[in-house]
Amino acid sequence: MVVEIINVGTEILLGNIVNTNACFLAKKCADLGLNLYHHQVVGDNLQRLVDTLKLASSRSDIIILSGGLGPTLDDMTREGLSSFLEMPLILNDEIKDKLEGFFNSRNIKMTENNLRQAMVIKDAIVIENHNGTAPGMIVEKDSKIYILLPGPPFELEPMFCDIEKYIRARFSGLIYSRTLKLCNISESVLETRMMDLLESKNPTVAIYAKIAAIDIRISAMADNREGAIKLIAPVEAELKKRFEKNIFSDDENATIESTVLDLLRKKGQTLAVAESCTGGLLSSNIVENPHASDVFKMGVVTYSNESKSELLGVPKMVILRHGAVSSNTAEAMCVGLFEKYKADANIAITGVSGPDHSENKPVGLVYIACSYEGRINIVEHRFKGNRNIVRNRAAKFAITLLRDMIVGIK
Amino acid sequence: MVVEIINVGTEILLGNIVNTNACFLAKKCADLGLNLYHHQVVGDNLQRLVDTLKLASSRSDIIILSGGLGPTLDDMTREGLSSFLEMPLILNDEIKDKLEGFFNSRNIKMTENNLRQAMVIKDAIVIENHNGTAPGMIVEKDSKIYILLPGPPFELEPMFCDIEKYIRARFSGLIYSRTLKLCNISESVLETRMMDLLESKNPTVAIYAKIAAIDIRISAMADNREGAIKLIAPVEAELKKRFEKNIFSDDENATIESTVLDLLRKKGQTLAVAESCTGGLLSSNIVENPHASDVFKMGVVTYSNESKSELLGVPKMVILRHGAVSSNTAEAMCVGLFEKYKADANIAITGVSGPDHSENKPVGLVYIACSYEGRINIVEHRFKGNRNIVRNRAAKFAITLLRDMIVGIK
Repeated sequence: MVVEIINVGTEILLGNIVNTNACFLAKKCADLGLNLYHHQVVGDNLQRLVDTLKLASSRSDIIILSGGLGPTLDDMTREGLSSFLEMPLILNDEIKDKLEGFFNSRNIKMTENNLRQAMVIKDAIVIENHNGTAPGMIVEKDSKIYILLPGPPFELEPMFCDIEKYIRARFSGLIYSRTLKLCNISESVLETRMMDLLESKNPTVAIYAKIAAIDIRISAMADNREGAIKLIAPVEAELKKRFEKNIFSDDENATIESTVLDLLRKKGQTLAVAESCTGGLLSSNIVENPHASDVFKMGVVTYSNESKSELLGVPKMVILRHGAVSSNTAEAMCVGLFEKYKADANIAITGVSGPDHSENKPVGLVYIACSYEGRINIVEHRFKGNRNIVRNRAAKFAITLLRDMIVGIK
Repeated sequence: MVVEIINVGTEILLGNIVNTNACFLAKKCADLGLNLYHHQVVGDNLQRLVDTLKLASSRSDIIILSGGLGPTLDDMTREGLSSFLEMPLILNDEIKDKLEGFFNSRNIKMTENNLRQAMVIKDAIVIENHNGTAPGMIVEKDSKIYILLPGPPFELEPMFCDIEKYIRARFSGLIYSRTLKLCNISESVLETRMMDLLESKNPTVAIYAKIAAIDIRISAMADNREGAIKLIAPVEAELKKRFEKNIFSDDENATIESTVLDLLRKKGQTLAVAESCTGGLLSSNIVENPHASDVFKMGVVTYSNESKSELLGVPKMVILRHGAVSSNTAEAMCVGLFEKYKADANIAITGVSGPDHSENKPVGLVYIACSYEGRINIVEHRFKGNRNIVRNRAAKFAITLLRDMIVGIK
């Protein structure tokens, strides 16, 4: 089954946004076992959109369009597909009512152009948008399937879950995947140690590097789920044997933060964090997980030296003698956090995220201190990259250190 | 002059990498005043690459190809273009010598496949690669220009500077853009109030919605920068008049957070935040900006009820009577933050980010309290969307409320 992606939007052609939708959809298509040979981007122009659809339908079975479903006049994906397929657009009363309800509940007068979002192609399957106003659509004609998705990634990505179910139900020949999540290993070392498995054809095995973590994805194609699982099992077992200490989860949706929350939850323990250079990013990564509140007690963002003393009781002398970015200050932050707020697990981060160095210390120098069950570990890192990358790495490596302490490998 | 981008590489089609080259090239083309109507991605397949080139050359004047110039067999952009244009590939001795020098200097034996990189299309202009081994090329045939660039962004981006000079020398005409950043207005209302301006042809005016903010981009094409600025000026002035209160910046790189930091920095004032449901996200958004430390004093993530009392002095009775998610608790958090830590500007957020409701309050209900120069504002929001979206919206609306108070419209 050949699939093609068409991203609609002049803002993509102007380079104002990075096309992350294309990457997300490409990955999803690969997971579904669909063959993606072509990907097109076209601006908000009706004639060029129709030409693009013509080309796509001449060579692909499933055409996924994203963008151009909003309320404004330059949103013309609906019109483009309607015109190409010669299928009329009709007003959907259910969507219209929902739109009116949405605006009423906010006490905002609905402008007329919003009604464009209630226009759907006749006989289309309408897909509800739980995170925005423009619904998605699935249209079938002449054995081709057209899928319309909204442009904003936070609307498109959750909506694609519903679409996925539809595609899986519609086509047999099933791809099933398992994902192992690893930490404390580099991509090149991992590859060298599993070169033999990477050559496997069914299941296929692939490596995806993330920040401070790596996913190994094992995908098998079979007639049904049981068949696929049977193909995957021996490879998964071999990988688990080889990388026992590095695998922190075999749940595709797990993150290192959710893993730590689960480990602490099981023991009825609590977590607190103190952040300087990461500035709340670690807390936010933790709170991203539903039910974090069972475990996560509190965090402090002690960005100034005064707040390190005020909120964590870091002695001013420690900062004066060793600097705010030092192993000693990280330790004092971690100890102070524990003594003041009494959580079972404590993480403290201090570092230089740039763009300028500070205290004559280089950009990327970060100290992480973790305390857990009476033990404390302090680690120095020298991260490469810009402000954003240094902060993200620091936050990820910090929670990974705590995980290592909880499972007893550090 | 119409330009088209073709990215070559199966790894892009599989979603293994985000196509940042497309975004970079699109921006560059816009700056150069070239009209980009189409963008295609094609895998490492000779026939499909030739088909893609055929289509591109039928509708565009300049075709930029990236990727597929490396040493391995699946790098076939050179062969594809050579075959399509019916222009032979010949060995370039200068490049061959450079390649051999490169490997010799590293004491590595050059494998035979590396010589593929020394093959260039006859009569092509060869562009040196200062950051890798594969050179770029410019080929002209039948009044069409084909530009070949290497795939890795750190090779492609610097190389494009040389190409830019070539294009500028070859064609006149320049696009220049200005961006206005707005808050407190919806996309549909904005469009209704500037419909007349959206129809303008030179400059063009376009709207891009973000979370809790909207960009208006005004782009003009002229012979030089001064000419473009002259075309933009009256439209920019009109927009500034119409949306005076909504425009928080006319700097393309500004964010609402950087704007608030600048406003406070000018007055020598400080900022502190207390977050419940956003869990550090607002702090992190603030700290994302270089030199935030001049202004941002500290933050607390008071995720549990106890920490709200402990760190902010919120009376237990307030939480008991009104709930942790209430206007009263938001107010008490904000007042406690000010009284304990004495920043000039204070933001407190409490809400239900989901997935489950809490205290029988619905997901998406968020209270934001801001205090500034003796005044306090408390606002109730009912956000739509999942946990991630609710948290992102809450963080953005909170800093926007503070901005409104600083500039005196709230």
